[in-house]
Amino acid sequence: MRGFLVIGNKATTSPFSLKNIPGAGRMDILCRCISQAIFLSHSIRKSLEVYLLLLGDPNPPIVVKIKSDEVRRMSPDERSIAGLIRKALKFKAGEGWTETNSGIFISKKGLRGLLEDLSNSYHIYYMREDGEDIRKISYKMENPLFVLGDHVGVKKEDEKIILRFAEDIVSVSKLSLMAEQCITIANYELDRTSMNIQNTLLNYSKK
Amino acid sequence: MRGFLVIGNKATTSPFSLKNIPGAGRMDILCRCISQAIFLSHSIRKSLEVYLLLLGDPNPPIVVKIKSDEVRRMSPDERSIAGLIRKALKFKAGEGWTETNSGIFISKKGLRGLLEDLSNSYHIYYMREDGEDIRKISYKMENPLFVLGDHVGVKKEDEKIILRFAEDIVSVSKLSLMAEQCITIANYELDRTSMNIQNTLLNYSKK
Repeated sequence: MRGFLVIGNKATTSPFSLKNIPGAGRMDILCRCISQAIFLSHSIRKSLEVYLLLLGDPNPPIVVKIKSDEVRRMSPDERSIAGLIRKALKFKAGEGWTETNSGIFISKKGLRGLLEDLSNSYHIYYMREDGEDIRKISYKMENPLFVLGDHVGVKKEDEKIILRFAEDIVSVSKLSLMAEQCITIANYELDRTSMNIQNTLLNYSKK
Repeated sequence: MRGFLVIGNKATTSPFSLKNIPGAGRMDILCRCISQAIFLSHSIRKSLEVYLLLLGDPNPPIVVKIKSDEVRRMSPDERSIAGLIRKALKFKAGEGWTETNSGIFISKKGLRGLLEDLSNSYHIYYMREDGEDIRKISYKMENPLFVLGDHVGVKKEDEKIILRFAEDIVSVSKLSLMAEQCITIANYELDRTSMNIQNTLLNYSKK
């Protein structure tokens, strides 16, 4: 299992126009995060979850969850993904998860409640530029879930909550990258690590 | 200098509707390639060029060039970038470069002519899954320009032309990734290498 939680500080919590996706509190960033997290060329990654915490008006907080194993009829372009998020926001979000499309769910959780749930199945890592180099610690990450902010970053009070749950602060670059680039790089480093492990096991079994 | 050349095998060569960017021969892929290549969080990379070779109907080939140092009023979302490409396609493409917006140019070059020009200022690398691991060779790349295909890949006859100009075939993953993910990873590996070199020089000058 692998997961990403992206905090959309201004992302709208009501249905929005597909003609102006950035205008919906920079929903374009969140769409690209989903796209870059779950899609490969002509296929979708297995066992990957993306959580979007929407904190914009008029009805925050709302969480949208995407389960890669169950998602259907999604393309990697922003408009396709935005259309599915818009549809999800037409549903009433309750305490539990409501499925709004195959593999897409909505809930009225806040950051603390969400992290409490997630820490049952994931090891939480907080992504920040000054963290530990992911390349040095990816080998020991089991079922990691990375928490990261959008263009605004992560507010101090949210950071405090995250750090209560996080095993480590991890950095993917000394440059300040866009959220979806951080996700691509995390996937890349984890892929390399898991392939190295597979190769090692393969070599071992050959002996 | 760093560059990327993405081959859009079916990408339209006439102005298209922004309501259906994937329908324009998967122009969405090319927009994401530009976005992931040149944007950082709240800034734009220096000295980076992206070339899109559009090979779709009705008027192929057309090349769109984006110079990061000169580009203005572009946002990282697909629609913003698609709007600028659409505008470029309203101009008549000639043999030379016509500027259609700050930092955006159009020309009626084919793959061979383009690579002939580019090989004057770049070392050309061809991106293919079975190539050399980029991590092993990034340290020796000076002014690299990476050639890669869209969702269709690269046609045999185009590959032959590329290989005539390419110094090496380079791979960023054993997984089949989307073109924009390959670009993000190439930037990442080159950033790490150049930072290592800077650190080494820094340590050296301290002695």
